[in-house]
Amino acid sequence: MSPDSPIAVLDSGIGGLAVVRALRALLPHERILYFGDTARTPYGWKSPATVSGFVRQIVGYLQGYDPKHVLIGCNTATSLALAAIKKEFPDLSISGIVESGARAAIEAAGAKSFPLIAIMATEATIWSKAYERAIHRRRHHARLLLRPAPILVPLVEEGRETTDPLMKLALSQYLQPLVARGADVLVLGCTHYTLLKPMIRKLTNNAMRLIDSSEQCAEDVARRLAAANLLFGGSTAGSTSGSLRCFVTDDSPRFRTLAIKFLGKETEPPVLVSPDELYAVSVR
Amino acid sequence: MSPDSPIAVLDSGIGGLAVVRALRALLPHERILYFGDTARTPYGWKSPATVSGFVRQIVGYLQGYDPKHVLIGCNTATSLALAAIKKEFPDLSISGIVESGARAAIEAAGAKSFPLIAIMATEATIWSKAYERAIHRRRHHARLLLRPAPILVPLVEEGRETTDPLMKLALSQYLQPLVARGADVLVLGCTHYTLLKPMIRKLTNNAMRLIDSSEQCAEDVARRLAAANLLFGGSTAGSTSGSLRCFVTDDSPRFRTLAIKFLGKETEPPVLVSPDELYAVSVR
Repeated sequence: MSPDSPIAVLDSGIGGLAVVRALRALLPHERILYFGDTARTPYGWKSPATVSGFVRQIVGYLQGYDPKHVLIGCNTATSLALAAIKKEFPDLSISGIVESGARAAIEAAGAKSFPLIAIMATEATIWSKAYERAIHRRRHHARLLLRPAPILVPLVEEGRETTDPLMKLALSQYLQPLVARGADVLVLGCTHYTLLKPMIRKLTNNAMRLIDSSEQCAEDVARRLAAANLLFGGSTAGSTSGSLRCFVTDDSPRFRTLAIKFLGKETEPPVLVSPDELYAVSVR
Repeated sequence: MSPDSPIAVLDSGIGGLAVVRALRALLPHERILYFGDTARTPYGWKSPATVSGFVRQIVGYLQGYDPKHVLIGCNTATSLALAAIKKEFPDLSISGIVESGARAAIEAAGAKSFPLIAIMATEATIWSKAYERAIHRRRHHARLLLRPAPILVPLVEEGRETTDPLMKLALSQYLQPLVARGADVLVLGCTHYTLLKPMIRKLTNNAMRLIDSSEQCAEDVARRLAAANLLFGGSTAGSTSGSLRCFVTDDSPRFRTLAIKFLGKETEPPVLVSPDELYAVSVR
């Protein structure tokens, strides 16, 4: 493993590309590998045992590329699997997305004695209490409003725009109680919500500080690599431009349609690694 | 294999329990095995290769129970995998759900020369053209309106009632164009939609004949078993009551919450068969 090694980002499907976009903006010279488990997506209401099993296989597969860091770029996978996976791969540098979001939420809450922090996320992320623990470890007195918002991921994946009446109604149903309770900060605890930020700002009248966990964790990865002297080419990277290679477990049209929305630009066609191949690697 | 052997029903997750409910109403003495692939659900926008791979594993697993019939009780799995699976398991009696729905749609269209038949289903079912082919084989001149309705499955699975404003708006968006075009028949080409029937009738003012593919395929299975003299206990079944045993690949709270909605009553806790176990059986 060296500064030339890739950064690996894994996700339940497509949302982690929001993290990749943020990473590429900060670290344009890096080689990035992205693994989306599109055959078994979504993870958002599945059990810790199932999600950990999937993540274990993917990390095992990515290990073959000698990554300098593995980022679990999915809130559900981080919440349900990060602790177990770190133990199972002690030689890999691995981080998740929840700690970054929690840290930023506390910073955004400022000096307020009993800030009210709302977390909008998948059901599994909320049930796991990962955000609760990460926030309360930093600010014991923070008050939390936990808001599972399961329909937003399918709405985004269906390709609906934020101006679609169904999307607006869903967002209003989820956000209105947070506004009514006077939340100070709202953590977007699912990478899909990154695409909804402008509409969320509008529907909440900018009443709360918005924390995008995707951007926050990209900053943390950059800091971590800099501290370990593992940034690509050090300070002499110059004009060498980075690269992105995507792997998926299912090659359906959805990935190609949505990738451009999350990444903001086209990408090479993904490499297909079927669930059977993943399994075979895991028992080798 | 004998009349005492079980009937096996498999599904991407939970919706196939609507088929089980219809089967149990028709054949109350049968032993039924249900397999829901809850770890990898939904199938509705995934590729034929991926879905066939999952169905192959499940049928291989169920084969161990010596079923007298295997019913693919999921429209997407039938559309994408039935033909391949029948070839791969030539010794098993296997059927799907699409032919039953198509046959009933044609019957419901009656003597009309150019009936307009609407199909509401998942994206993968629509893309596969399985309903188109099954209907046109029977009535070359039937006109079709194909309506992918991807958000309905997540709305049902989130537990939303048909009176929920978001559910009503989604249904209206999908149904209004079918009413406007004057469809004669509407095929509910996804088992989840069974739960939405009363609201669909209301929103369409009973303007079209509604075909529930779950009920239709249960009738076809009953006919098929009777013709092969494979009904449980023949005519002497008397008071012996049937049984239902469920298998799932992910044991999350969703299965238990939703099973009762689809089945209309409580069931025993499901047996967990992890995706890794399924894979191990498939390569044995």
